[in-house]
Amino acid sequence: MDIYGADYYPEHWDKSYWTKHIELMKAYGIEWVRIGEFMWSVVEPKDGEFDFSLLDEAIELLSKNGIKIILGTPTATPPAWLINKYPEILPKDWGGRTRGFGSRRHYSLNSKVYLDYALRIVEQYASRYGDTIDLWQIDNEFGCHGTTYSFTDDDLKAFREWLKEKYGTLENLNKRWGTVFWSQTYNDWDEIVFPINTPTFENPHQMLDIYRFMSDSSIRFLRMQVELIRKYSAKPITHNFMVDFMDLDYRKMAKYIDFVSWDNYIATEEYDPLRQSANHSLMRSLKHQPFLVIEQQPGRVNWRQVNNNYKPEYLAMWTKQAYLNGAMGVMPFRFEQIRFGAEQYHAGLLDYNGRPTKRLEAYSQVRNETSGILYPEPEVAIYFDYENEWIHRINHLNRNFRYWDALVDIYKAVKNLGYNVEFVFKDDEIDRYDVLIIPYASYISESFTEKVRKFNGPVYMTAMSGIKDEYNWITERMPWNLIDEFGIEVTDFGAITSDEAYVFAQPVTTTFWKDEIEVGNAKVIGCFKDGSPFITVKGNRYYVGAVLDEYGWKLLLSEVLKPRISGYGYEITNVNEDGANKTYVLNILPNETKIYIDGQLQTLAPFQLRLTIRQENF
Amino acid sequence: MDIYGADYYPEHWDKSYWTKHIELMKAYGIEWVRIGEFMWSVVEPKDGEFDFSLLDEAIELLSKNGIKIILGTPTATPPAWLINKYPEILPKDWGGRTRGFGSRRHYSLNSKVYLDYALRIVEQYASRYGDTIDLWQIDNEFGCHGTTYSFTDDDLKAFREWLKEKYGTLENLNKRWGTVFWSQTYNDWDEIVFPINTPTFENPHQMLDIYRFMSDSSIRFLRMQVELIRKYSAKPITHNFMVDFMDLDYRKMAKYIDFVSWDNYIATEEYDPLRQSANHSLMRSLKHQPFLVIEQQPGRVNWRQVNNNYKPEYLAMWTKQAYLNGAMGVMPFRFEQIRFGAEQYHAGLLDYNGRPTKRLEAYSQVRNETSGILYPEPEVAIYFDYENEWIHRINHLNRNFRYWDALVDIYKAVKNLGYNVEFVFKDDEIDRYDVLIIPYASYISESFTEKVRKFNGPVYMTAMSGIKDEYNWITERMPWNLIDEFGIEVTDFGAITSDEAYVFAQPVTTTFWKDEIEVGNAKVIGCFKDGSPFITVKGNRYYVGAVLDEYGWKLLLSEVLKPRISGYGYEITNVNEDGANKTYVLNILPNETKIYIDGQLQTLAPFQLRLTIRQENF
Amino acid sequence: MDIYGADYYPEHWDKSYWTKHIELMKAYGIEWVRIGEFMWSVVEPKDGEFDFSLLDEAIELLSKNGIKIILGTPTATPPAWLINKYPEILPKDWGGRTRGFGSRRHYSLNSKVYLDYALRIVEQYASRYGDTIDLWQIDNEFGCHGTTYSFTDDDLKAFREWLKEKYGTLENLNKRWGTVFWSQTYNDWDEIVFPINTPTFENPHQMLDIYRFMSDSSIRFLRMQVELIRKYSAKPITHNFMVDFMDLDYRKMAKYIDFVSWDNYIATEEYDPLRQSANHSLMRSLKHQPFLVIEQQPGRVNWRQVNNNYKPEYLAMWTKQAYLNGAMGVMPFRFEQIRFGAEQYHAGLLDYNGRPTKRLEAYSQVRNETSGILYPEPEVAIYFDYENEWIHRINHLNRNFRYWDALVDIYKAVKNLGYNVEFVFKDDEIDRYDVLIIPYASYISESFTEKVRKFNGPVYMTAMSGIKDEYNWITERMPWNLIDEFGIEVTDFGAITSDEAYVFAQPVTTTFWKDEIEVGNAKVIGCFKDGSPFITVKGNRYYVGAVLDEYGWKLLLSEVLKPRISGYGYEITNVNEDGANKTYVLNILPNETKIYIDGQLQTLAPFQLRLTIRQENF
Repeated sequence: MDIYGADYYPEHWDKSYWTKHIELMKAYGIEWVRIGEFMWSVVEPKDGEFDFSLLDEAIELLSKNGIKIILGTPTATPPAWLINKYPEILPKDWGGRTRGFGSRRHYSLNSKVYLDYALRIVEQYASRYGDTIDLWQIDNEFGCHGTTYSFTDDDLKAFREWLKEKYGTLENLNKRWGTVFWSQTYNDWDEIVFPINTPTFENPHQMLDIYRFMSDSSIRFLRMQVELIRKYSAKPITHNFMVDFMDLDYRKMAKYIDFVSWDNYIATEEYDPLRQSANHSLMRSLKHQPFLVIEQQPGRVNWRQVNNNYKPEYLAMWTKQAYLNGAMGVMPFRFEQIRFGAEQYHAGLLDYNGRPTKRLEAYSQVRNETSGILYPEPEVAIYFDYENEWIHRINHLNRNFRYWDALVDIYKAVKNLGYNVEFVFKDDEIDRYDVLIIPYASYISESFTEKVRKFNGPVYMTAMSGIKDEYNWITERMPWNLIDEFGIEVTDFGAITSDEAYVFAQPVTTTFWKDEIEVGNAKVIGCFKDGSPFITVKGNRYYVGAVLDEYGWKLLLSEVLKPRISGYGYEITNVNEDGANKTYVLNILPNETKIYIDGQLQTLAPFQLRLTIRQENF
Repeated sequence: MDIYGADYYPEHWDKSYWTKHIELMKAYGIEWVRIGEFMWSVVEPKDGEFDFSLLDEAIELLSKNGIKIILGTPTATPPAWLINKYPEILPKDWGGRTRGFGSRRHYSLNSKVYLDYALRIVEQYASRYGDTIDLWQIDNEFGCHGTTYSFTDDDLKAFREWLKEKYGTLENLNKRWGTVFWSQTYNDWDEIVFPINTPTFENPHQMLDIYRFMSDSSIRFLRMQVELIRKYSAKPITHNFMVDFMDLDYRKMAKYIDFVSWDNYIATEEYDPLRQSANHSLMRSLKHQPFLVIEQQPGRVNWRQVNNNYKPEYLAMWTKQAYLNGAMGVMPFRFEQIRFGAEQYHAGLLDYNGRPTKRLEAYSQVRNETSGILYPEPEVAIYFDYENEWIHRINHLNRNFRYWDALVDIYKAVKNLGYNVEFVFKDDEIDRYDVLIIPYASYISESFTEKVRKFNGPVYMTAMSGIKDEYNWITERMPWNLIDEFGIEVTDFGAITSDEAYVFAQPVTTTFWKDEIEVGNAKVIGCFKDGSPFITVKGNRYYVGAVLDEYGWKLLLSEVLKPRISGYGYEITNVNEDGANKTYVLNILPNETKIYIDGQLQTLAPFQLRLTIRQENF
Repeated sequence: MDIYGADYYPEHWDKSYWTKHIELMKAYGIEWVRIGEFMWSVVEPKDGEFDFSLLDEAIELLSKNGIKIILGTPTATPPAWLINKYPEILPKDWGGRTRGFGSRRHYSLNSKVYLDYALRIVEQYASRYGDTIDLWQIDNEFGCHGTTYSFTDDDLKAFREWLKEKYGTLENLNKRWGTVFWSQTYNDWDEIVFPINTPTFENPHQMLDIYRFMSDSSIRFLRMQVELIRKYSAKPITHNFMVDFMDLDYRKMAKYIDFVSWDNYIATEEYDPLRQSANHSLMRSLKHQPFLVIEQQPGRVNWRQVNNNYKPEYLAMWTKQAYLNGAMGVMPFRFEQIRFGAEQYHAGLLDYNGRPTKRLEAYSQVRNETSGILYPEPEVAIYFDYENEWIHRINHLNRNFRYWDALVDIYKAVKNLGYNVEFVFKDDEIDRYDVLIIPYASYISESFTEKVRKFNGPVYMTAMSGIKDEYNWITERMPWNLIDEFGIEVTDFGAITSDEAYVFAQPVTTTFWKDEIEVGNAKVIGCFKDGSPFITVKGNRYYVGAVLDEYGWKLLLSEVLKPRISGYGYEITNVNEDGANKTYVLNILPNETKIYIDGQLQTLAPFQLRLTIRQENF
């Protein structure tokens, strides 16, 4: 990797500490820092009164010591004076209640007065440091704490404008939203409101547009900042995306930044290494390019109900895992543990007394094992669409279903069989992959449908695919345009809690959903316990009429993806470098494990990363 | 039955579809449709601008094809233009928060401006179609989604008027509400407010009046519509009641309509056929006359967390079960599955492509088994009072207790023993029944007490009966006026979670509540594990000092109600037709079952309905 | 004990009942009553129109019959006319929503208009009855139902004043609150707001001040009343504290009253006698003087989800337990069970018909066993600080941790070993105790630290101690000033769910938290399963690096506190009276138990209280 660094907050310390901090950075190989993203009230203590002395001094000192700088625009925390002056900046939640000052991200993305102030401070940053610093980060974690969504008057006005732009006429909107249902027809754009605390279920077509509009509002704000910075600076611009986060269309947002960064925190209450890997892969897939882990959980965090500690070796392993998945760098958050503020219990690389921790030592040493950047070979593609996540969320036959969780199960199955995974999006070219999986893809665009038809390799498609159109209407027949391609038609469906079924002759568990399949010119290769068709194949087109878990997917996929590896507790990445086929394998367990790759036994020490040169192309 | 039909929404379709729909109706025996109940924005697209062309055309086409029409008044969905003009129409919830536009039932029943607009559109319907259509439905599912309750300024004003009417003077109200407790005495009617987000428990006497007032508000609105329609039309008027619904006093409401209709959806997460049967019986009992299932769940619904599918045979069984319980008709909701709107995942009789489903076929065939109307013989009466449900809900020794659930257990016990159940109300005559059960009847009016005293047959009364007066005060002694009748006095009580007790010599489980009973001239025939009296009898007056489950009730009742049937998985109805004693028996299981009626073995195919002519009166 | 009485509400009854009530009081030994605390609307039915006739008459009749009177000021229930006139009196909850009229405690403690009216009625009480009655109670259960906290405009103004008083300058406040974190710096006192519905975690330093300010607001109101009453009356003044209640700093509040009273209700869903004992001891420790149980749960209550009954013997046992813990009296709430109001299901000493219950009989008889007042010997001190409870509540590594629950476990361990427990506070002298335990004491003041250093006996300190300063900052090193004293340093920590560890050689369960301990000149006497240090000792200074349960504490403490008793189901108190060492032992079980004290077998009848004169000082 290229970027070894940490997130740093000079403003949290008396300047007398800075020298000691920088000495430790240099001693332990911290070459990059991200700074400045929460400094608005430092640099603009009062409306229009700017004071950059502290930031100037910090940047100068860091630069003088050879530390490279990522500067974050400070727009995530509008100061008290601004909110006090214009309380209408505050966002409103789904229940219509104002979200107050006192933490962070307390702004409506459609507040004109907020945007003016935000762009003013961004311009100050950009014009002052455009040449000085090395990279830009826009704002901080758009959408965090549910702040993608806000329902103020300003948001409503902007939504109506967005709808006018999209639909042109109310007649068109009424048709697409099916407002004739429950007598919701609109005569005037101003009659359109957000469905706040409605007696019962909202209009699902309106809801999808709300999700789109809210995501677009964040993207628009990011673009405004990018365009402004571009006037003053040629340095790359990024934004820090989040783990397991689905409220924003990151694919769409990624187009406007130079590279993707993300914040790698343990995604679920129970730590699951391959789930973190799936996040890495999704982030890499957004631009199909290397990415930066701009914040890396260093040990315990502070924001869980129960904040477990992790031994220092974990930070080394997490860094190696990022490298394995194609990262260009990893930056633990944060360099210095601090004694105050809402994150006072969050671990850092220094302890509360400013002494280096074992975490810092572990991070310092791991760079020896992570030089260069890995480019995983394109092998298996999983179709992904943020809008499908929203469609699943809005209403569902089975409201317990979680799109991303279901995809992670497939991801883990493929990785365990020894293959790389890349996520692909509707506007991606897919020819270079060997195998395509289209899971739970409610809406599939006509253009992607065409790509599927032309795809040479095996294709696996599942239940819930091709059952919606772009307005979130259910299609007349299913899976819409791919009925012929797969040789089956889904004639009905229902939710299930858990059921038994068979993949080939093996029993598996299906959950969430069950299709009623009418088999055309396909062949049944798996059935439900009641004998009805569950999995069909026509040529190399597989259809799966329910939700399988990791085990079930491994069983099904192994027909086509012959297992390359045997054992457990590993993650591998296959690359082709300098003409050689290489497999990097990481032991993701805190204890020794034995596995077979290429038929050869490999014994891996705890968290060990090892490179194997393969003699054959598997 | 007389009425075979379905709920239909011509406004959801381009007119080009209508002809095909009607052809299918005729092909499959759909002779009735309910239409129009969500068409407000169609027929009055703008304030005062009426356009009945679509509805005219639909009615004409249906009529021309011999389809009979139930027309619903469209008042459940005030259009966007109306809410936009008068946002004060929107209801407020228990927390005082406005319930917004965007779904349905978004109106306060005490908004004068809403009522004016609503009655204007009803008058349009009535005057235009008074002679044309065949039946009227008022509004749609009063009270659905908690909309019985609203707490706007208009509601408060109306509540104060309602209180003035009831109490005459504040002095009287203060006394009846016990306002001296916690210093709540009122000097002025305007000091009375709804208890919104109070620090702790509300005044239980005020709460009972709130429940009554809110129920009365719906009833008043129904009456307004009924009276208006009566000016223009002589056709029968109904309203669609709901499954397991207790917010409205349906008994009181039923007086103002010509017959009861209800919407038969699976009432609980787990399907329990006899619970649906209990609902049928309650609906029949409201007027002690045949009723209509105006909406019948056809397969899966869309509004559960997990929306399971049901095989088509279930629709046939549900139809037969309605017939068994005295229905005059069953109308699956809805004829056409639709692709858009908040109910897009709800099953229908046609599929998303307009093709007949197996559900339609099953429904079409079941009419062969359900001709005529059954009139169940009066046998066992269970006392029921909506106000008692509210009393249990307001405050309770055991807040986990659910009145209706506890009654359903008794209902199932009686039915399983082979007897018909009718629910009786305080103003019903009860002489024609053989056995009377008075369960959990907190308040029993003096006039009904008198009927109990005169009742010749066995009477079973339970804990929690006769412990409240009509103002929701606890009585001085319990069970108030029936102490002598039952020969016991309840001197204290407490909540329990679960306990063991004995009915005769058999162990049973008691739950929720335990009486301390002082036995007078009664005899103890069941005791708690600690030896204290549990069940007593004086003559044929039984008192039960706790809550029994279905098993316990069967055990206790079998002394008087000798089991007429042996087996499981059945429901029976006994009728006397043309001088013959007949027993209709329905297999409620999807598999074969063997039972003994009259000592004769009967093997029933899955969901089979069979008639037995009994030789003797059991 | 001195005070045998009950809580009584003459205003709830027609005067014709009073004579009968008083006759029963006299017959059953009720010598004291508490009255008047909810009578505001009785004595001031309209603004400024006072009518004391009812209260005059009641007091006169009670006094004439020799019943002593505790008079409660009626400020907990501002009347409807007052709220109607000044709705701004109503408090607002954490979500900023108004808490409405209709129950009790519906006032903001910082509403000027409320305070004026409240003090006016208090002055009426004081001036009228200052010489007549025997004791004063201020208001009723300050803080009940979460009413310590209110967030109105008046509260905010008062909070800002409180902050000005505390911090002097905004610069100082900004520094102490660490507002540089997330850009929260204030330029103007008016920019400070309550963190209502913030997107994410609040500022923990601001939160601690909010908890302090809110507690101070109640204390200030109590002081206002005390000072006003003092102008007219020399009678002792108290306030009724609550079971398990941590929102108010009772230690601080107790300074302003003459003695502590509290309301003894079963604290948790499952009844745990020693938890009630811990509450008794905490209340006694507030002033290290006898206290009054001014409300005693008589049997079932009405405010639980499931309100179990308790046999009358329990009331006798609870009374003996209060006596055992040093109470000067016990007053069951309430004398008369009432038929109306929000507490209509609450048990009383008379039944709904005014007849004496078995509870009254049991209470009447118990006085024979509870004469005099016990003064438990100082033996074991447990350090306690309300502010530490708030610190744990505000943010935490393990948000499942409950400070008081963890302390109750230690309390039970010590009591079971046969020793008295007194809680000590930071400004207490601690020399007279033999053993000191400092559990989970986030912040320990410098002055108390000094006392610890000088303490001769064994000291046990636990994880989470000495990790915060008075502004809720984490300390640089831990346990801050006591590192040398204990010979260890905590270098890191993390939350755990449950873990195995060893005390000496015995396995125990640790929960919630795990320290990483660097051992200096201490000795390890217990370790975690991974071999890292868990319990250390340096001289007689013990450090415990996790949370132990009752069993673990008994094991650990028994090294120093040699077990004086063997058996189960008992509570003991050791006193020294007239030069004799006495041990009072109470069987807290409803069945016989056998125990050994002083090596002698004692068989105790159910709920029996027995006195043992010890030959030796254990």
